[in-house]
Amino acid sequence: MTKIDLNCDMGEGFGVYSLGDDAAMLEIVTSANIACGFHAGDPLVMADTLAGAKARGVGCGAHPSFMDLWGFGRRPILGQSPADIEKQLIYQIGALQALAAAQGQRLTHVKTHGSLGNMANEDIDLARAVARAIRAVDRDFIFVVMPGLPTERAGEAAGLRLAREIYADRAYAANGNLASRKLPGAVLHDAEAAAARILAIVETGEVTALDGTRIKVRADTVCVHGDTADAVAMARAVKTRLIGAGYEVRPMGEWL
Amino acid sequence: MTKIDLNCDMGEGFGVYSLGDDAAMLEIVTSANIACGFHAGDPLVMADTLAGAKARGVGCGAHPSFMDLWGFGRRPILGQSPADIEKQLIYQIGALQALAAAQGQRLTHVKTHGSLGNMANEDIDLARAVARAIRAVDRDFIFVVMPGLPTERAGEAAGLRLAREIYADRAYAANGNLASRKLPGAVLHDAEAAAARILAIVETGEVTALDGTRIKVRADTVCVHGDTADAVAMARAVKTRLIGAGYEVRPMGEWL
Amino acid sequence: MTKIDLNCDMGEGFGVYSLGDDAAMLEIVTSANIACGFHAGDPLVMADTLAGAKARGVGCGAHPSFMDLWGFGRRPILGQSPADIEKQLIYQIGALQALAAAQGQRLTHVKTHGSLGNMANEDIDLARAVARAIRAVDRDFIFVVMPGLPTERAGEAAGLRLAREIYADRAYAANGNLASRKLPGAVLHDAEAAAARILAIVETGEVTALDGTRIKVRADTVCVHGDTADAVAMARAVKTRLIGAGYEVRPMGEWL
Amino acid sequence: MTKIDLNCDMGEGFGVYSLGDDAAMLEIVTSANIACGFHAGDPLVMADTLAGAKARGVGCGAHPSFMDLWGFGRRPILGQSPADIEKQLIYQIGALQALAAAQGQRLTHVKTHGSLGNMANEDIDLARAVARAIRAVDRDFIFVVMPGLPTERAGEAAGLRLAREIYADRAYAANGNLASRKLPGAVLHDAEAAAARILAIVETGEVTALDGTRIKVRADTVCVHGDTADAVAMARAVKTRLIGAGYEVRPMGEWL
Repeated sequence: MTKIDLNCDMGEGFGVYSLGDDAAMLEIVTSANIACGFHAGDPLVMADTLAGAKARGVGCGAHPSFMDLWGFGRRPILGQSPADIEKQLIYQIGALQALAAAQGQRLTHVKTHGSLGNMANEDIDLARAVARAIRAVDRDFIFVVMPGLPTERAGEAAGLRLAREIYADRAYAANGNLASRKLPGAVLHDAEAAAARILAIVETGEVTALDGTRIKVRADTVCVHGDTADAVAMARAVKTRLIGAGYEVRPMGEWL
Repeated sequence: MTKIDLNCDMGEGFGVYSLGDDAAMLEIVTSANIACGFHAGDPLVMADTLAGAKARGVGCGAHPSFMDLWGFGRRPILGQSPADIEKQLIYQIGALQALAAAQGQRLTHVKTHGSLGNMANEDIDLARAVARAIRAVDRDFIFVVMPGLPTERAGEAAGLRLAREIYADRAYAANGNLASRKLPGAVLHDAEAAAARILAIVETGEVTALDGTRIKVRADTVCVHGDTADAVAMARAVKTRLIGAGYEVRPMGEWL
Repeated sequence: MTKIDLNCDMGEGFGVYSLGDDAAMLEIVTSANIACGFHAGDPLVMADTLAGAKARGVGCGAHPSFMDLWGFGRRPILGQSPADIEKQLIYQIGALQALAAAQGQRLTHVKTHGSLGNMANEDIDLARAVARAIRAVDRDFIFVVMPGLPTERAGEAAGLRLAREIYADRAYAANGNLASRKLPGAVLHDAEAAAARILAIVETGEVTALDGTRIKVRADTVCVHGDTADAVAMARAVKTRLIGAGYEVRPMGEWL
Repeated sequence: MTKIDLNCDMGEGFGVYSLGDDAAMLEIVTSANIACGFHAGDPLVMADTLAGAKARGVGCGAHPSFMDLWGFGRRPILGQSPADIEKQLIYQIGALQALAAAQGQRLTHVKTHGSLGNMANEDIDLARAVARAIRAVDRDFIFVVMPGLPTERAGEAAGLRLAREIYADRAYAANGNLASRKLPGAVLHDAEAAAARILAIVETGEVTALDGTRIKVRADTVCVHGDTADAVAMARAVKTRLIGAGYEVRPMGEWL
């Protein structure tokens, strides 16, 4: 039986603020990408999210980004060298790792968030800095990458284990990167259609870009979201469809 | 020959801001307490400070505090449980530890900064939370404590290695804690007088509090500061005096 | 017909985060206390909240607090002089005032948030600093105060217009301040009971404290909350009850 | 006698941090651009800087930028609409204006800081948003602009009083914007050479760009810096040279 992972961004609260329905998503997904305090998250939210994931057998990874709470890490912040960003990532991953270890947990993976992720998938130097940061903290970490893009190449070159990722709710550009959210059709809202598409991608190893181009993608993990009721429904639909087709949905850390 | 350590708070810059003459102090002291990004410091400053210390054979430790950049960690922030503060400390220590490991360094100690330190020396529950945080990250860390106060007791109970600390530039209250900066004579400015006092404390195992009380103190490490030219001169005088009296001034991590 | 105002804290989001159901509350209350960016709020949230209030005829005031986004202004932060806090308040009120003016609006009132409010109601020096800050920005502002407490006295001495406030969902201590949330019965949850109590307070000019003490209170405005569905229901019940008893519920800025 | 203004960025500290020698610069310049708490500055620093300027007859203006303390406002932060940036500027200018009014002072001008300034000089939509923000707070404010660039055009179209500015320590690109700091010769260090250049620019109405292009510039105010001892010396040299050539160096707010 072929294995696949379902991952979701979690622990995106800060102080009194919360974001997304982590409790619902922890019942569905198999890996949690936990914000590390720069674009979202704080030590208490991080520890709670780790504990919640542990209680449900969900694997945990770091989800670092730019120091940009106001912009939730979604704003491109220029003027930072790859070496500087590398240190920011080591800081964040190390902080989460220490909180995990204090609760008897081990992180399994690292996935970059927001603009940092987008930028790393357009810039091989930045992608290499991300890979170096991951390796510096723990060379056994899985690097969650976009198939065919700089993060995948940088991760391979660094000798890291890779989880190639596809998005359940996002359309693709012809170059294999996510299509801009501003384009019509770039964000999928229909749960069943998205679930069917994901299954097709996983089975054929190809996704059709917005412009019709067929792109080869290998998928180890599917990214789903939990920030709206619709998003939770889509996550459930994706999981149901994958299981129905005979896939074993399990934490990437257990089999990659 | 009896060994003693000289420690100094360092890496207290943030972005374009710097504070204190770290370069001068790295030539004098044997242990650096490095700010971890909550009350001061950022990933770049932290990495640079670690590298500078390594180049001069200075031991490195974490110097965590409250998330209070504006107040530099000096303001008592109430309304936080010891368990919450414990997580904040694990986060900070873990972040610095990861940056150190990425540069092939190991941290040797942890010392709390500012109001957190003052509060932990008045509240055994908080002192225990600090000790738990340190132990959670690495049970080999040395906990820098105030002799006779809750931090010492909590550290002992946690089975941590301890470095009892005395301050070169601060007078003491009768209970063994630092006298409030607002009291006359609470802060020492004369380098030679401070150096002579420190030597006397180390040799007699006693310090005279502001009110004349004699307090027993064991001193493994002497805290000096580097935020003014006078402070640097005092640090030099303390070191010279200790060496002149036959003490071996070496990083606490090498002998404690 | 006797007039009374209903006020609610609003604009407490930050970036992607939101808090409370401002849209629902704007249909109920007559005055909005808008966070100013230190404990919550940002320039975009502030401008949107002002615009939403304007569209529904709701009066707007500033709701400043400590610079403490993580603690949502609820943590006592010591070590700040009244003069320092005064400047923080002028900054926040001035920022909101400018955003209001840019949209053709005028602020009517100022109410302190969280720990700052609690501390000002226990410390006449701090209460005076708050009154000075309000007066410095606009001497026509209404100062929302607690009847019988230092804020009322400081506001009177400063010659400011005052809005004496009672809380729909909070019990009182014998000294006229809010009872600690930790005490049993300190927070009211039943909408109809709270509404009946508010009407009784308004009509008798007295409230019964948790320990049975009768306290004289004059009420110009009733504080309701909007952070839960229950809270919104309570706000509606209070308004309905007051109108049913013949009160004219109108923005404090129109009649005080 | 022809008038000219000397302006300098000031109040760039934050909490315990300070930056630049404001005391020295206040003895030299005639206008202070005061940071407003987003990229530097805090309410206490702002109030102190205003008071220091007042004591020496130096005019005060707002120096707003992006909310980016870590990057000191020097990093391009993308993904913000002009309308969003407009609100951030109104917030900052309003905050400083209130602090000024509380001390009996009036602001005279607004100058954007760092990346925001650079971006506004490349993007007419952003320049217009800046002009709208200034006008919204006080239509009598002087807008400090770069001659020949979008800020000048936007300011003119908004009907604002303008102060065309030249930089004492920076070379120019052929398009009239500042040459990138990374280019050789982009930053001037010799005080006397810089002073002579400034006088020549003021007298001829032209500056020679790095590539030799002659650019027409009108100069109402000269920007000098105070962040190094050399910078202070350059400011003094510029002032001495201008006075020696018969210029009256006076705050822009008095004559523009």
